[in-house]
Amino acid sequence: MQLTQEIFSDTLPFWDNIEEADQHILCSNTVSKSFSAGENIHSGGECSGVIFVRSGCLRVYILSENGKNITLYRLFPGDMCMLSASCVLESITFDVTIDAEEASECIIIGGAAYNALSQKYKDIRIFSLETAVSRFSDVMWVMQQILFMSMDRRLAVFLIDEAARTGSDEILLTHEQIARYIGSAREVVSRMLKYFVSEGMVEVSRKGIRIIDKEKLRKLTL
Amino acid sequence: MQLTQEIFSDTLPFWDNIEEADQHILCSNTVSKSFSAGENIHSGGECSGVIFVRSGCLRVYILSENGKNITLYRLFPGDMCMLSASCVLESITFDVTIDAEEASECIIIGGAAYNALSQKYKDIRIFSLETAVSRFSDVMWVMQQILFMSMDRRLAVFLIDEAARTGSDEILLTHEQIARYIGSAREVVSRMLKYFVSEGMVEVSRKGIRIIDKEKLRKLTL
Repeated sequence: MQLTQEIFSDTLPFWDNIEEADQHILCSNTVSKSFSAGENIHSGGECSGVIFVRSGCLRVYILSENGKNITLYRLFPGDMCMLSASCVLESITFDVTIDAEEASECIIIGGAAYNALSQKYKDIRIFSLETAVSRFSDVMWVMQQILFMSMDRRLAVFLIDEAARTGSDEILLTHEQIARYIGSAREVVSRMLKYFVSEGMVEVSRKGIRIIDKEKLRKLTL
Repeated sequence: MQLTQEIFSDTLPFWDNIEEADQHILCSNTVSKSFSAGENIHSGGECSGVIFVRSGCLRVYILSENGKNITLYRLFPGDMCMLSASCVLESITFDVTIDAEEASECIIIGGAAYNALSQKYKDIRIFSLETAVSRFSDVMWVMQQILFMSMDRRLAVFLIDEAARTGSDEILLTHEQIARYIGSAREVVSRMLKYFVSEGMVEVSRKGIRIIDKEKLRKLTL
């Protein structure tokens, strides 16, 4: 409780502007939770509350009926997630899924208590909306990456550059690492590599990626 | 001025809660503008102000360097656009483009005046953020359409939505226009429409597309 109060006082810009009784309500409706790597934290539809990340990393993504998924953004220590609290923002009508990407510790404010206070205090409402809107920009960025940048070309350029740099046709990086290098999402890189494999340009193993038809790959970069 | 005041009083939920002097500031910083079909209204980066649609239809889209574009949503009479006022919402860091899709009349509040008042009144800030967040949901819907739905289903959903919107089974759009709405290429749309024709679901003429078996088309959307 004492710890929660300190965290809130540090991170919530409206903290000092709400009554002490309401600070207590917020704290007593807050729980600490630890998640192991890969554990699901929130599934679309439910109201899991407002999530603060204390340590670790959470992945926020959308999931299709047939299991495809796209990472929208990641949450790091100090970040807050409003999209998990659909009962607070009624204009958010889409569902996201949230997993712990590594072992993570979070504190979670119950949706009902938070919602009641956000009805009472305009500052809380503004803070919640601003948090959501800032994620709107992240999501637009992902959308533009996926839709507009010819990812096949960027990935081909990266693989050929990397082979030249290391003097080896074997690129010992994970899909996740490559995604980070080319400013994409792991899912996008994996999907594109699957396509490269089907075209006979690369082989993919647990160790990494091996270029087997450099000429064909090079043509993609032109 | 009198007309503007009446419109604002009808559409802005915060209108009665701001001082009369500020109502005047808002009105005197507002202009009426007519746009012809196809005319550009807003380009990414600039702050064009807050746009209210009085008549017609605006298309809000994102544009890539190589001219590809994806429709995010359309604005109809009564709708308001905050994404054209980047100086009001600093957490919006992406650019959209807005065109008049048909001859349209708008009233536009200058960004600086609106911004000054939204600093003064929390109700205005909340209204602006809520308007932006509700478009976040629209954009997520488009993203899911593009990323997850198969093209036949996407096209069927579009045709049925469009028929419902216009109250007519005749969709007077070119394949190119439809491709832009559903984030695809003209060739893909033409090929898919040919398939719909062969299945007896639609007829295609120079004028546009006529739905002839809505039940069969609807089955594709499930």
